[in-house]
Amino acid sequence: MRTSRLEAFSDGVFAIAITLLVLDLAVPPLAESERDGLWAALGREWPSYFAYLVSFLVIGIIWINHHTMLTLVERVDRPILFANLVLLMTVSVIPFPTRLLAEYLLEPEAHVAAAVYSATMLAMGAAFYALWSTITRRPGSLRRPLDPETRRATLRRFGAGQVLYAAAIGLSFVSAIATLALHGALGIYYCFDQLTPSAGDDDR
Amino acid sequence: MRTSRLEAFSDGVFAIAITLLVLDLAVPPLAESERDGLWAALGREWPSYFAYLVSFLVIGIIWINHHTMLTLVERVDRPILFANLVLLMTVSVIPFPTRLLAEYLLEPEAHVAAAVYSATMLAMGAAFYALWSTITRRPGSLRRPLDPETRRATLRRFGAGQVLYAAAIGLSFVSAIATLALHGALGIYYCFDQLTPSAGDDDR
Amino acid sequence: MRTSRLEAFSDGVFAIAITLLVLDLAVPPLAESERDGLWAALGREWPSYFAYLVSFLVIGIIWINHHTMLTLVERVDRPILFANLVLLMTVSVIPFPTRLLAEYLLEPEAHVAAAVYSATMLAMGAAFYALWSTITRRPGSLRRPLDPETRRATLRRFGAGQVLYAAAIGLSFVSAIATLALHGALGIYYCFDQLTPSAGDDDR
Amino acid sequence: MRTSRLEAFSDGVFAIAITLLVLDLAVPPLAESERDGLWAALGREWPSYFAYLVSFLVIGIIWINHHTMLTLVERVDRPILFANLVLLMTVSVIPFPTRLLAEYLLEPEAHVAAAVYSATMLAMGAAFYALWSTITRRPGSLRRPLDPETRRATLRRFGAGQVLYAAAIGLSFVSAIATLALHGALGIYYCFDQLTPSAGDDDR
Repeated sequence: MRTSRLEAFSDGVFAIAITLLVLDLAVPPLAESERDGLWAALGREWPSYFAYLVSFLVIGIIWINHHTMLTLVERVDRPILFANLVLLMTVSVIPFPTRLLAEYLLEPEAHVAAAVYSATMLAMGAAFYALWSTITRRPGSLRRPLDPETRRATLRRFGAGQVLYAAAIGLSFVSAIATLALHGALGIYYCFDQLTPSAGDDDR
Repeated sequence: MRTSRLEAFSDGVFAIAITLLVLDLAVPPLAESERDGLWAALGREWPSYFAYLVSFLVIGIIWINHHTMLTLVERVDRPILFANLVLLMTVSVIPFPTRLLAEYLLEPEAHVAAAVYSATMLAMGAAFYALWSTITRRPGSLRRPLDPETRRATLRRFGAGQVLYAAAIGLSFVSAIATLALHGALGIYYCFDQLTPSAGDDDR
Repeated sequence: MRTSRLEAFSDGVFAIAITLLVLDLAVPPLAESERDGLWAALGREWPSYFAYLVSFLVIGIIWINHHTMLTLVERVDRPILFANLVLLMTVSVIPFPTRLLAEYLLEPEAHVAAAVYSATMLAMGAAFYALWSTITRRPGSLRRPLDPETRRATLRRFGAGQVLYAAAIGLSFVSAIATLALHGALGIYYCFDQLTPSAGDDDR
Repeated sequence: MRTSRLEAFSDGVFAIAITLLVLDLAVPPLAESERDGLWAALGREWPSYFAYLVSFLVIGIIWINHHTMLTLVERVDRPILFANLVLLMTVSVIPFPTRLLAEYLLEPEAHVAAAVYSATMLAMGAAFYALWSTITRRPGSLRRPLDPETRRATLRRFGAGQVLYAAAIGLSFVSAIATLALHGALGIYYCFDQLTPSAGDDDR
């Protein structure tokens, strides 16, 4: 099976998940804006803008990396389709922890919401690892076979990313706002640092 | 008419239906989380996570099987487009019974919600059967003609799936939770067991 | 400019509009289902299922006809893109009159909702007419030039469809339910009767 | 990296953002329609129809121009993907200021909503400028190299558009309705006047 329709379906899920985030940018109710002005009422909504910004970045970067990964793939079979489906589930669920964190960021229980958000990222990272591992384990999936050493190296790099997501869960109990900022920073870092460098660089 | 735009449209509908499911993962209201904590409030929402998980899996598997089916198809005409549209309707309606079942899973009337959910799956299975039957009945639709025996065999297999969905309607009146679990198990089973094996295996 | 990206964007809009319809299938509130059972509470929601069914069919058929039309087109320019954008607007707005009609179908003012629904279809038909007229007026747009007589014949057929939509506005003031049924019947009729027969039949 | 999957993802985001606008066309509540009729109740919702119309047009035109720009592009790298992602963020956020402006258009604080709406357009214009600037700065991105003079000319034209968006922010404090009308007029103007004329005209 060729990758084209897998890409089309995945692109659709990424595009929808990233765009659905806007539904949680709440318009302040009239009553609230009458109290001390619409600027102030909008300003108080900053946690939802911040969460929107970070989640948009995160989903966008996962899309870029998913895209990069699939340029290396020649053909897919059912286990790969299934592993990809699990990754898409962790991506398309992101609007939920985003909404949760936006709602609770300034509340006493913000750490729970931040931990759920970080756990979602950890699950997404694990699904990405599982997808890459499934692809590279199956002969004939890749356009060019990966030597075992390079494969181990790319998997190690994914593993390192997982340590950071696990650390974000820990950070949640210190500061929810810092946790969200960390996810934003990780997003930007992953954007410019390829997840599959040695395999990808000379291939395009 | 080539299948490419049919696939693009179908992929879009599948991708949106699967991603819209996230809108029904409810964030617990502040008041409720203040009573006994956000962890507990989130925990009480487990029916919506469970229903999300199963429906995501179900739509994902239907997509994989739809994808597999279309790799066998050479060209489509209006009756096939119409049969495909009916299948897409049964797929894109899935967020509704999902929401219904999530809402009522722990209520006394859970069996009604589970029966509606199972009936949707039965309708989806029937639409899949009708689409495959329409495609294989029309000369020139398939890349390689199917001999009558193979055609009957594949249709029989679809029929067997329908018996399971009908059984799920019966199970609804015993236990709604077991019904939802059954649909999840059927999804995983269908993922790894091709619906159109003899026609599909040697074709890719 | 080739038609491929126009198709991709249009397919996206069609697929999203058709799938968003499911958001208006309301789950009956718990209190209501406790009064006389969930079956009865679901049954009372029939106007929303009926409106869903008809609008799903209508958008699906417009997609099929849009698809058929574009198979005849070789290249598009800005006026065609703009005419297509206007058509997409009339399509993507359909969930709104659908929601309106579902809400008001059993109310004394159902005729207003039915008239708004029918007017949306009239606008959609007019946009379809304008798109086809724009495409056929521009030299080099079509894969094969259309002789003036065939062009007039296809435009006349679109015009005939418009008369039916206008009649549906009239019917709205007699019976909203009959109006919705008429739109469903028109959808099925248009599905099997091509809008551009003489131009399309021998071209594929 | 080829542009095809970038286009597919971008098309998805554009298509979803433009279609999600329909969710904010509110059906008047029954109680309100009973007071003085459904026609009157619908009429009072005109700010939401007006905002829908303008935002639909604006997103549609950005899509057309994005499309035109990408026909000139041969290959994309990570900085271009990132710049495109930022543009997509400014596009997919548009339903939020649209909802805000629709809600507040007739309120005393309409100017705040209009300024936020205009600022979103300014950000979108800046992201478009940055994307074009990034693409043209990287050797090998374009199908045909752009001479420095043409590049400066196209960037100047983008800059001119930005002045108009900045003026719209100023106009917000005079009249929110005029501001929305200005954005609609700019949309139509941009539709028929290409943003990248000298580079684009002879290329297709």
